[in-house]
Amino acid sequence: MTTQLAAKTPQEIRALIRSGRWRGVTSGVAAGYVQANLAILPKDLAFDFLLFCQRNPRPCPLLEVVEAGSAEPRLTAPGADLRTDVPAYRIYQQGRLAAEVDSLQDHWRDDLVSFLLGCSFSFENAMTDAGIPVRHQEMGCNVPMYVTNIATAPAGVFAGPMVVSMRPIPREQIVRAVQVTSRFPATHGAPVHIGRPQDIGIRDLDRPDYGDPVEIRPGEEPVFWACGVTPQAVALACQPSLMITHAPGKMFVTDRRDADYAVL
Amino acid sequence: MTTQLAAKTPQEIRALIRSGRWRGVTSGVAAGYVQANLAILPKDLAFDFLLFCQRNPRPCPLLEVVEAGSAEPRLTAPGADLRTDVPAYRIYQQGRLAAEVDSLQDHWRDDLVSFLLGCSFSFENAMTDAGIPVRHQEMGCNVPMYVTNIATAPAGVFAGPMVVSMRPIPREQIVRAVQVTSRFPATHGAPVHIGRPQDIGIRDLDRPDYGDPVEIRPGEEPVFWACGVTPQAVALACQPSLMITHAPGKMFVTDRRDADYAVL
Repeated sequence: MTTQLAAKTPQEIRALIRSGRWRGVTSGVAAGYVQANLAILPKDLAFDFLLFCQRNPRPCPLLEVVEAGSAEPRLTAPGADLRTDVPAYRIYQQGRLAAEVDSLQDHWRDDLVSFLLGCSFSFENAMTDAGIPVRHQEMGCNVPMYVTNIATAPAGVFAGPMVVSMRPIPREQIVRAVQVTSRFPATHGAPVHIGRPQDIGIRDLDRPDYGDPVEIRPGEEPVFWACGVTPQAVALACQPSLMITHAPGKMFVTDRRDADYAVL
Repeated sequence: MTTQLAAKTPQEIRALIRSGRWRGVTSGVAAGYVQANLAILPKDLAFDFLLFCQRNPRPCPLLEVVEAGSAEPRLTAPGADLRTDVPAYRIYQQGRLAAEVDSLQDHWRDDLVSFLLGCSFSFENAMTDAGIPVRHQEMGCNVPMYVTNIATAPAGVFAGPMVVSMRPIPREQIVRAVQVTSRFPATHGAPVHIGRPQDIGIRDLDRPDYGDPVEIRPGEEPVFWACGVTPQAVALACQPSLMITHAPGKMFVTDRRDADYAVL
């Protein structure tokens, strides 16, 4: 990430994306602003999906829902256009990846409801500020993610296991890690488990279901947070006629600051 | 409130109500357990109302949504029946009060979706525990509530001003009041305004729009919290064909403890 992109405003980043001048991974751009996972579904699934998110706020922290007929997230990014302002999109048909595109203008329909969900960047920033290591960032790889045996609360057609991300934390910093991430319930918040992967159905930390394995050093414990891959995995398992998401690592940048969502 | 009712479990309280042996005001019963506002709407309005609550979490903190076809809040009170376990219900037709009843068994329909919303009892307990006065409790009256000039975020057919409740707080305890109530975002959480009623469109504190006026003593400031009357007022303004709520002060008692919803 260049310092230039980190210093830009969310509006500037979105304008760069919209005009096709930049389509990179958004980690670190517009520093201090909240980035969001995007999930778009047809209206006939929207109530069930909204209810699924309401029942499972840790893996599915809703930042905004944009009703059918609009692509403007008026609460978190007024003036933005969800059809053009994300660097890349994935289009799934019947639960299978059908295309990756850089604009939804040829794919938009008036019955599509857009969901913006908090991502882990906000609490990772809080951890870094508190001097707590974020291993996958140190290693320059993706965070390791695992399918667990923790059931989500089902809603309508949506049900399935929680997916978690893992960060190794030195034992003497675990309490502080719980505290600083608890301040951000809108972006996954506190950990869901500390220490024993087998207790939540994870057999081998070296073989994550998504992302990359990371080193766990002596004196560290694996700490697990609910992950935004959960709603996407649960939704795709239903094989909806159409589902659109952001491409991995290429998030929607909102106008809200991390601090706007801190609870204390 | 008798000590006997305060010491009972939520299950015992609901059994007393269901069997018709007790139908009182629920303030103070099953001490330590979360009580909920109830709003029931036909399914054709449920997506918009759920979205309204999602966009306005301070006045509309959702604890659980029970889908059409069920009256059992499986997440917050498994085994309970929302048609019989509230001491009294109000039935509104086209936005007007049509009846107050003590059971919904003759009024239930398979297309009704039930919303349970957090109420202020949880954070008032936290204030009392912290030694902060709760004036309307001291005076034995209802909390004063006011319609403000703060617009809620509209959703579909639902829109309207926020209603707030007011508690006078000694100046030296205002910071602590913000801290202890901030811990409970699921039950309205932190105040929305401190000190100047005219800034939020309130002309006369002695004439609340709902509830009773309370004394403000020298050295105290009025502090305002988002109020659960907001979603009810906003929903009734749409004149839905049918809406059912709990009767004032007669809430649904869940199995969840106040502490379950504390964020830190």
